Amino acid sequence: MSKVVIEMSLSLDGFIAGPNDMPDQPFGGRNAQRLHDWLLVGPEPYKENAFFRPEGKNREFVDALFHTTGALLTGRRTYDLVNGWNGSHPIPGLPVVVLTHEPPADVPKGKSSFAFHTNVREAVDAAKILAKEKAVMVHGASTTQQLLAAGLADELRVHIAPLLLGDGRRLFERGAGDLPLEMIETIATPQAVHIHYRICP
Amino acid sequence: MSKVVIEMSLSLDGFIAGPNDMPDQPFGGRNAQRLHDWLLVGPEPYKENAFFRPEGKNREFVDALFHTTGALLTGRRTYDLVNGWNGSHPIPGLPVVVLTHEPPADVPKGKSSFAFHTNVREAVDAAKILAKEKAVMVHGASTTQQLLAAGLADELRVHIAPLLLGDGRRLFERGAGDLPLEMIETIATPQAVHIHYRICP
Repeated sequence: MSKVVIEMSLSLDGFIAGPNDMPDQPFGGRNAQRLHDWLLVGPEPYKENAFFRPEGKNREFVDALFHTTGALLTGRRTYDLVNGWNGSHPIPGLPVVVLTHEPPADVPKGKSSFAFHTNVREAVDAAKILAKEKAVMVHGASTTQQLLAAGLADELRVHIAPLLLGDGRRLFERGAGDLPLEMIETIATPQAVHIHYRICP
Repeated sequence: MSKVVIEMSLSLDGFIAGPNDMPDQPFGGRNAQRLHDWLLVGPEPYKENAFFRPEGKNREFVDALFHTTGALLTGRRTYDLVNGWNGSHPIPGLPVVVLTHEPPADVPKGKSSFAFHTNVREAVDAAKILAKEKAVMVHGASTTQQLLAAGLADELRVHIAPLLLGDGRRLFERGAGDLPLEMIETIATPQAVHIHYRICP
């Protein structure tokens, strides 16, 4: 059975983007591009996607992510900010499920398939089927909050970047409720501390 | 010269206490007592303070903390919640500086000295003098935010407990501004991931 893994980069003060995230500036301004340094700033391009440049332990982590991820579940905001990855998600051929109230009129053509769902449970089920025996990777603050509230996520992996952003979009808003986690693994690098948790039912 | 080190336990969603922190319930309800499991839940009492029960890497961390800390700088809220540690801070003989608009009429008598300051810069200076060559440990969300805003803190050590609390008092509110950090050390334990940062000027 496919696992559902929330996968998000955030600042130590809990922001996943600066206050002004828009297609021209998807990270939202301030120092928010540094949230993704662990993935994007290194001496050489990643073998499967030259936009990525992880190094050392970050590269090993990305290797594992590329090989264990079978589908992406994301929110409409992320999808719009990156224009649907122009049709091809960075993980080659990765199918994408988008949680949205209204599917877009046009979908960019590329190597990824796209499905649109309004119901969070149906979106998760669709992503699990697409992922086959691999994991469903979840992106987006609103999608994360909806999955946590509905008890639909199995694991949570945060990449805590070394900065205080001071403003922007929070991964966790008030109201999430009391939820115990169990730490599975921590990988510390200068660009991010990756902490992998099991979400306790 | 004495270093100023912010030292706080928080949940993964950024809360340092639950929504109802009061003297009878200093952690604020919900699962917030779990924020301090790394310090309080272990098989045997700590040698210098039987209320603490850290084990393994957490015990080593507490050993280092006890030996390198020369003074505490804290806010009035923390001071009131614990009734001034009844006069004796858990680190034996540790002098305490409290940032407050109005000093309390009575101060509990014990092994710690207490000083009260209204001005954040004066409070930091007083704590540095008391700490001598050791570090000033800083507690409290408001105190943390004031020190960060004034550029008066050198380092930041967070103890991220494995839970989502969903509500309560945040360590970092909006408005802190853009502040790069540099990761010095990460210690992962089942009860907390300790991340030590240098605050970049």
